[in-house]
This record gives sequence, structure tokens and C-alpha cells, in this order.
Amino acid sequence: MMSKARGKFITVEGGEGAGKSTNIDVIKTYLEEQGIDYVQTREPGGTLIAEKMRRLLLDKHDETMNPLAELLLVFAARAQHIASLIKPSLDSGDWVLCDRFTDATYAYQGCGRKLNSELVGQLETLVQRELRPDLTIILDMEPRVGLERARQRGDLDRFEIEKLEFFDRVRSCYLDIAQAEPERCVVINAEEDFPTVRRAVLAALHQRLGGAD
Amino acid sequence: MMSKARGKFITVEGGEGAGKSTNIDVIKTYLEEQGIDYVQTREPGGTLIAEKMRRLLLDKHDETMNPLAELLLVFAARAQHIASLIKPSLDSGDWVLCDRFTDATYAYQGCGRKLNSELVGQLETLVQRELRPDLTIILDMEPRVGLERARQRGDLDRFEIEKLEFFDRVRSCYLDIAQAEPERCVVINAEEDFPTVRRAVLAALHQRLGGAD
Repeated sequence: MMSKARGKFITVEGGEGAGKSTNIDVIKTYLEEQGIDYVQTREPGGTLIAEKMRRLLLDKHDETMNPLAELLLVFAARAQHIASLIKPSLDSGDWVLCDRFTDATYAYQGCGRKLNSELVGQLETLVQRELRPDLTIILDMEPRVGLERARQRGDLDRFEIEKLEFFDRVRSCYLDIAQAEPERCVVINAEEDFPTVRRAVLAALHQRLGGAD
Repeated sequence: MMSKARGKFITVEGGEGAGKSTNIDVIKTYLEEQGIDYVQTREPGGTLIAEKMRRLLLDKHDETMNPLAELLLVFAARAQHIASLIKPSLDSGDWVLCDRFTDATYAYQGCGRKLNSELVGQLETLVQRELRPDLTIILDMEPRVGLERARQRGDLDRFEIEKLEFFDRVRSCYLDIAQAEPERCVVINAEEDFPTVRRAVLAALHQRLGGAD
């Protein structure tokens, strides 16, 4: 019996209210139809310990979180996630479908908080070594539109109460990444209606990953 | 009116059961007698957010913490501690008395867990920049003796249940640091009786820092 090929690593990125959850469901249905075994996860978080770190990152505290502390905490959670879940899954042949990954760190901590993006890159190399997503779907949308959607969903967390200018920086960071790495990233206009966005997501999966090989 | 000079930064290191708490009290009494304003704190922890990170580090989890995740979490807590407490205190002229600092990271994560100590050094530079303790008191003791004392105190945390060989590595790491940085570190034999240890601690404070100037 041949051992299964290494799984593919798919990440979904996008600002608040861009429809990540809905489109992750689209991808799940596609993988199931293709008979591909996969693990669904998210960042920050994805394992017991990493989810505890997520809570620290997203909770409001009676103390300002230092930006460098935040960045190191994000990568601590990522190191845990990779070691406990992502790497073992990919190695066993399962695909991994992850809601946000390191592009979000470049976008939120790097561009959003104006931390040195070279520093983000150094930590990426340290924590991930060769690991990069095989496909990253970026759901792009005017921050104004997305935030209004997120507001209607309920309470805003520590990141969601940032100013609009913060989210403009986040958005252009995502677009810059997509431009720099066109073989990995697909930008999808998430302001279109759902059937159109869905078609674009499925086309990206089909063209970039072409089934289970 | 002259502004106060920058405060001094004193750290106390030592293995389990070496008498850190008792000797921190000795130092506090000395500082009070000298009329020096000081802040007492500890690592990991020292601020609201950093104490939450401390809990994550010390709690037992139903998942093994990845060593790199642990190291990044330690430095995340340190970045927070420095930004929120240590640096503002020293800048205002207060002294800072800290139960453990980066030497413990070299000892426990670097030597104990056999992580690359060069990596610890890189994170130290990133997070601390120029900040180093003015005086580090290392309470040295046979791990066997110290662990027996710690056991008698009650439950052992995630670090205290490591094997003796781990603590032997921790101890020799502390001694190596002291040898490499004799102008900063004072090694005190913590197996001596309390009055002898106390005299040695007070002598170190007097000789190395010589009061409030």
C-alpha cells in the first residue's frame, strides 16, 4: 500500500465581515465532495494551549498589551499550533483548512500596528521553517462595508474596535502580499453576491490545487 | 530640584528550594533601611497580562507545550513586563527587585530544554535592547537538596516535576553565566545556614551597588 501524499495547506484571510466563515464552509463542501480528508482549524488558536493564548490576545484587559508582546504571543500560539496539529496532519496526508495564518500577522501586527515587518519575517522563519500555505484565499472588501457587517453580528473584540484607518492598512497589506506571491494567493472580491464569490472560491481551488493529487 | 537618578535593577536567581523568597526579603529590608524606593516583582509575570501568561506557562495542560512556543511565551511576558513595569519604574528612579529574569530563560529553556541558547540571545536582544540587570544574585545549591525542600512545601508545578538531570543542567547554566559575567553576577552558596547566606547577600548589595547612588 502506498502511503498518502503530503496534505495541502489552505488558508483563508480577510478583514472583519468579509465572509470567511461562509466561504470556509464552501471549501469544506468541496473537499468532502472530492473525498479529501481534512482538518479545519483557525488562528490564533487551533489547539488547547493555542486557544488559551488566543483568549489572551482577543480579551480586553485593564492594561495595554505591548505590541511586541502581542507579536511574540501570536507566534507562540503558532508554534504550538504547527507542532501539535498542522504539521502532524499534513504529514499524515490530511489537508489543513485554516481560518487565518501568518498573512494576518503581517496585516494586523505588521501593517496595522506598524511593527517592523522584517521582524514578522524573522519570526515566521524561526517558527515555520519551510512551512507555507499551498493556497491562500484573500477575501477582499472595503473595510467600511466589512465592519458594518461585523457590527451587526454583535460585540466587537479588541481588534474590531480599532479605527477605520487601521483596517485600511490591514487591507492594503493583504493586497501587497497577494501581489508579491501570486502563485500562492488568490484575491476574491468579497463585496460581490454570494453565488459569485462562491464560484470564484471553487475556481481557485480547482485551478490551484486540482483535486487530491 | 534635581531629578532622581535612574533606578538599579536587581534580579535574584536560583533553582527550586534555594531560598529566593527569603533572600528577597533580606534585600527588601536592606533597601528600606537605605531609604531606596523600589518595586518588587517577578518573572514570568509582574503585570496583569504577564501574570496570565505565567499561568499558561506553569499550568499543567492536556497537551504538551512545544519548547519554542514556551520560549516565545516567556519573552512575550517579558516584553509586557518591561514595557508596563520595569522600564517605567527604573526611568522614574525606583529600583526594581525581580524574582528571576532572563538568566532563568537561559537556564530552564536554553539548557534545561536544550533549546538553542543563541536563539535565547536573539530574543533577549529583541525584547530587552540595552536593558540588563545591574546586579544578579544567584543562589546556588545542589538540585537534590533544593528539590527536597520544594517538595516539602507542597505541590510541584510543571517545571518542578522535571527529572533531576534537567535541574543539573539548569544549575551548571547559572554557574556558566556567572563565570562569563562576573561584574554583574554574584554566586552565593545557598546550602549554608541562613545567617551566613544573609551576610553574603548583604555584602553583595553593599559592594556592588553601594547604596543609593
